[in-house]
Amino acid sequence: MNICVGSLMKALIFDLDGTLVDTVYGHALSWQRALAEVGIHTDTARLHRRIGMAGELLMEESAREVGKQLSKAKMKAADKRHAELFARLVPQPRPLCGAVLMLQQLRKSRIAHGIATSGKRESIQPAIAALRLSDSAIIVDGSSGKQAKPAPDLFIQCQERLGASEKDCFVVGDATWDILAARRASILAIGLLSGGYGEDELYRAGAFRVYRDPAALFQSISQLGIPL
Amino acid sequence: MNICVGSLMKALIFDLDGTLVDTVYGHALSWQRALAEVGIHTDTARLHRRIGMAGELLMEESAREVGKQLSKAKMKAADKRHAELFARLVPQPRPLCGAVLMLQQLRKSRIAHGIATSGKRESIQPAIAALRLSDSAIIVDGSSGKQAKPAPDLFIQCQERLGASEKDCFVVGDATWDILAARRASILAIGLLSGGYGEDELYRAGAFRVYRDPAALFQSISQLGIPL
Repeated sequence: MNICVGSLMKALIFDLDGTLVDTVYGHALSWQRALAEVGIHTDTARLHRRIGMAGELLMEESAREVGKQLSKAKMKAADKRHAELFARLVPQPRPLCGAVLMLQQLRKSRIAHGIATSGKRESIQPAIAALRLSDSAIIVDGSSGKQAKPAPDLFIQCQERLGASEKDCFVVGDATWDILAARRASILAIGLLSGGYGEDELYRAGAFRVYRDPAALFQSISQLGIPL
Repeated sequence: MNICVGSLMKALIFDLDGTLVDTVYGHALSWQRALAEVGIHTDTARLHRRIGMAGELLMEESAREVGKQLSKAKMKAADKRHAELFARLVPQPRPLCGAVLMLQQLRKSRIAHGIATSGKRESIQPAIAALRLSDSAIIVDGSSGKQAKPAPDLFIQCQERLGASEKDCFVVGDATWDILAARRASILAIGLLSGGYGEDELYRAGAFRVYRDPAALFQSISQLGIPL
């Protein structure tokens, strides 16, 4: 009996930071310093759990937590400083374990896949380069005018560009924000521990499965109903 | 009816990194770079979960994971580089939210407390200074000749110096290594999320309670049976 390929999963939508590239810790420290310069002092672990949400939300929440408000001008300054500090701290983003090989294999096997990230195009360029993607790779970023995570917009746009219905896609992400945005987009989510969240945090948020890193995900890809 | 003070908890033993000072993320990045220089490439999240164990164990495990071995000379070099890179990345360790106030109040209320850390005395000096401890503060560090965590030795030595029996102490730490070492020392452990672990990771390791940071711990201190 042949397997009906139509019944299998068809596409993967990847988050970028902490999912494909090892940048979450650098972002957490850069945000901490950028926010300190505008008078908002926050423990790194608090910022760690905010990486992946829109930068504006991250700043607002960090300010509110210490009973402060940031003006639009200060937010803009902190956003710019974060980008500067991050580029200095992580000049060459490192692909996470197994990420490059996984993307190569997906391309080779013609499994539809794309990247959807809250980051702006110019700031994600070094990470995209490190992943050695083809020129035709589908990348939806925060410059698209769509609302960043935890809004579902970026994932929905990526899913539409991949030409797959939401029930045939998985979102792969390292943060609860990815899982929240995926669920709002009616797409199943897979968690990776490579961004530093605990396994239970991701399962409790609603991840269908949680793997250690891209390498472990790829090893189990048949169990996800993806025909390699 | 008077409360019998003898029945309450008598002493607190604190871990340092991620428990009192905001240094875990800086350590994770510094170890990543130091190990890369000796040919061991590891994702930051993997190193994050190894902070708090003895440096030698951390290096051995990171090498073994990628199928390599490090000579004693390379380990010594990486250890030195980690210290250099950390001092550059985090020149002034920042006390975690509520840490300084909590330590002041414990001193004022004459609640016995001490610090037990795997870090060596000279490398922890900036953190100790940032916490504004008194000269008489009890600090057991990795230079004591005792085995570092997850061995129970540092906690046992601290408990003995505090003059309290193990059943009257709590260990407070941010890492599963603290909880493992505490349980081996027959001391109850309290987890803090300020080192970036997930809540369930700490509860599953055996934490009696888990709080967000030193500030939240201190707010709940009466519920721990500690008479302020």
